[in-house]
Amino acid sequence: MARVTGAFATSARDVLAVEEPLEIRLHVEHDGRLVRRAVSVTMRTPGDDAELAAGFLFTEGIVRSRQAIADIRHCGPANAAGAGNTIRVELVPGTPVDFARLERHTYTTSSCGVCGKTSIEALEATSCFALAADEPIVDATLVHRLPVLLREAQRVFDRTGGLHASALFDLDGGLTVLREDVGRHNAVDKVIGARLLADRLPARDAILLVSGRASFELVQKAVMAGIPVLAAVGAPSSLAVELAARAGLTLLGFVRDGRFNVYSGAARVRGAEGDA
Amino acid sequence: MARVTGAFATSARDVLAVEEPLEIRLHVEHDGRLVRRAVSVTMRTPGDDAELAAGFLFTEGIVRSRQAIADIRHCGPANAAGAGNTIRVELVPGTPVDFARLERHTYTTSSCGVCGKTSIEALEATSCFALAADEPIVDATLVHRLPVLLREAQRVFDRTGGLHASALFDLDGGLTVLREDVGRHNAVDKVIGARLLADRLPARDAILLVSGRASFELVQKAVMAGIPVLAAVGAPSSLAVELAARAGLTLLGFVRDGRFNVYSGAARVRGAEGDA
Repeated sequence: MARVTGAFATSARDVLAVEEPLEIRLHVEHDGRLVRRAVSVTMRTPGDDAELAAGFLFTEGIVRSRQAIADIRHCGPANAAGAGNTIRVELVPGTPVDFARLERHTYTTSSCGVCGKTSIEALEATSCFALAADEPIVDATLVHRLPVLLREAQRVFDRTGGLHASALFDLDGGLTVLREDVGRHNAVDKVIGARLLADRLPARDAILLVSGRASFELVQKAVMAGIPVLAAVGAPSSLAVELAARAGLTLLGFVRDGRFNVYSGAARVRGAEGDA
Repeated sequence: MARVTGAFATSARDVLAVEEPLEIRLHVEHDGRLVRRAVSVTMRTPGDDAELAAGFLFTEGIVRSRQAIADIRHCGPANAAGAGNTIRVELVPGTPVDFARLERHTYTTSSCGVCGKTSIEALEATSCFALAADEPIVDATLVHRLPVLLREAQRVFDRTGGLHASALFDLDGGLTVLREDVGRHNAVDKVIGARLLADRLPARDAILLVSGRASFELVQKAVMAGIPVLAAVGAPSSLAVELAARAGLTLLGFVRDGRFNVYSGAARVRGAEGDA
């Protein structure tokens, strides 16, 4: 690699964020017949693949609990990280799977007659967990500290500049899970997958912090995991705010430098007095 | 919305980046039989939907030329922007479509026997355009100016902080296409789609600048469009560098503040002297 500063070039070595494809395959036996499906190929940073697969299947509404998962293992040849780029999730025999749901996001064969059906509704997965209206209470001083706590814990981010981070904090600011990935949705799936595999969902007393922007997809994942507060260092999208309001999630954006914006669920935020 | 600064809250209005789903549907007649397929649902910022659909289908290797497209139009009810969230791309009757390719990325029913087949190869679409080994030549002073030129042109970005930008520059620094989106891949698809619909591909004398990171996917899209130089304000991933080197693309990263890194295709970069 060459590093160019103004008109001067020097050769240098750079640590790159690793990106490789992960294929997630689902195996489930129904009435003695084994159904095998490749459900997703995602570009991810290798590591925590089992969590990523579990979190993805859970937040997509395909796997509903830890108990539905019998086994998760890599298959195929090993990659540089020693694992593989294909992972197989085996469900407990007889677990109901909505295969139509799997196809919905990505590939359908229905005729143009369904054109215009509200796609937002079709995209929303249904959460098992309802959020309590105004619990837990989160102090504004804690919110201000979150990005600092995240950065302290993020050595890899500082090295490559190429990774999204996602972290769960408890209400005292204790960091309980931190995961990174080239894809922001993957980082969140890894965090939620870690909680799922530990059978610790819903995460009712947790704050989810993401290092980038808050999209519809990330709000959706938080809601699925029963997480009441999503804080983003970056901006939220219009649809993220809309879904957060509908689901009763507290959505905070631009959380940095001693400021943040409250887009929904303000009843959970305390310690900020004023005219709002 | 409430804006919290330290312990003080004020109510405020915020301009949010709009995010809505777009379903892309493909219609093509074969032997008098109409084949209709929904090929993708992507979360995007409404606007330039026809370009987005065309660019997506082209960079995925499904549509190979402008001439294959007979018509592009929204269908279904209008959204707030006055258009719709479903768009129909009608191909010229008899246009060959590799429907298996459409399924490959997202949803396959093949057995675990294909596990471990190099997914990278499977993910690569095949470009119609080979890149010339060391053309065009790009001056380092121009590269340094790119992010400034982009920011000047990006009023929306400054308002919401929530949009990715993608732009094509000619070799004199003239900005020829600029598109924004909540999704960085969408912003690139819109730019490439604009060139496709104007029947101006390959873009052999163009530099593609993206406001964020350079992933495998973005390098792939640049290669498909015959763009020789991809410059990213953020970091590239390992797989992005790998693919760029293989395809002969010049990949520049961290293009900002008078510096940049050259990850591949250094022969196209001039005006930076030193030990590199």
